[in-house]
Amino acid sequence: MDKELTKKAAEIILKQRDCVLTLIDKDGYPSSSVLTVSHADGIKSIIFCGGLGSNKAKRIENCNRACVCFGSESYSVSFSGDIEILTDPDVKKEMWYEGLEHHFKGHDDPDYCVMKFTTKRYSLFIDWIEEKGGL
Amino acid sequence: MDKELTKKAAEIILKQRDCVLTLIDKDGYPSSSVLTVSHADGIKSIIFCGGLGSNKAKRIENCNRACVCFGSESYSVSFSGDIEILTDPDVKKEMWYEGLEHHFKGHDDPDYCVMKFTTKRYSLFIDWIEEKGGL
Repeated sequence: MDKELTKKAAEIILKQRDCVLTLIDKDGYPSSSVLTVSHADGIKSIIFCGGLGSNKAKRIENCNRACVCFGSESYSVSFSGDIEILTDPDVKKEMWYEGLEHHFKGHDDPDYCVMKFTTKRYSLFIDWIEEKGGL
Repeated sequence: MDKELTKKAAEIILKQRDCVLTLIDKDGYPSSSVLTVSHADGIKSIIFCGGLGSNKAKRIENCNRACVCFGSESYSVSFSGDIEILTDPDVKKEMWYEGLEHHFKGHDDPDYCVMKFTTKRYSLFIDWIEEKGGL
């Protein structure tokens, strides 16, 4: 693993924040949407917040395979892995961020949930250097 | 269908050009990468160019289900549908665009191919208006 490149990828995750999360829909088609990162642990895991009654949560329940992609004109950073829904009150409180109040009553809103993505494979293209690998 | 919204989505496709294409990998995981649009027919079909020996072409041969997503801070435009590889010389010539010469010898390079995505479902979020539907 190119540690310098994975460090740059981790920085992109936290700097760009807005990424494309792709889940598998009920018909087996990939389905993408733009989503904001709540937290990340290097390139190992990425946390999102959302609604328990949303299409995303339903899709995750049906199929836990996902992809997270951060793109710009100068780089393409993509991770494939598994995603799970967390409803633990402490986790929900910890992962809450400003702006979510437009969608949920608060961190104890029963519809608010945390989605934790764990990377299995990464594909990085940064500063004209390419690397693919697994974690 | 909201014709005004789909018109805006078609404009975004041609203006943004760089999008996230997601295919299904051999393990059944969604796998995304940043790619440039060559041509588009409204929101009905989107054309990309690439290599016949690339991971993308191999994935399409294995599974033709795909998703194309155009995202920014102010919109999220996403299409799920089928994708096919075209190697017809006339199509390859028509879809060739400036910049491809960095990757291929010319429009008759046997490794150069055209990937045609056809929309089945769309999910649009533009100017705070949301619409989902099928074509």
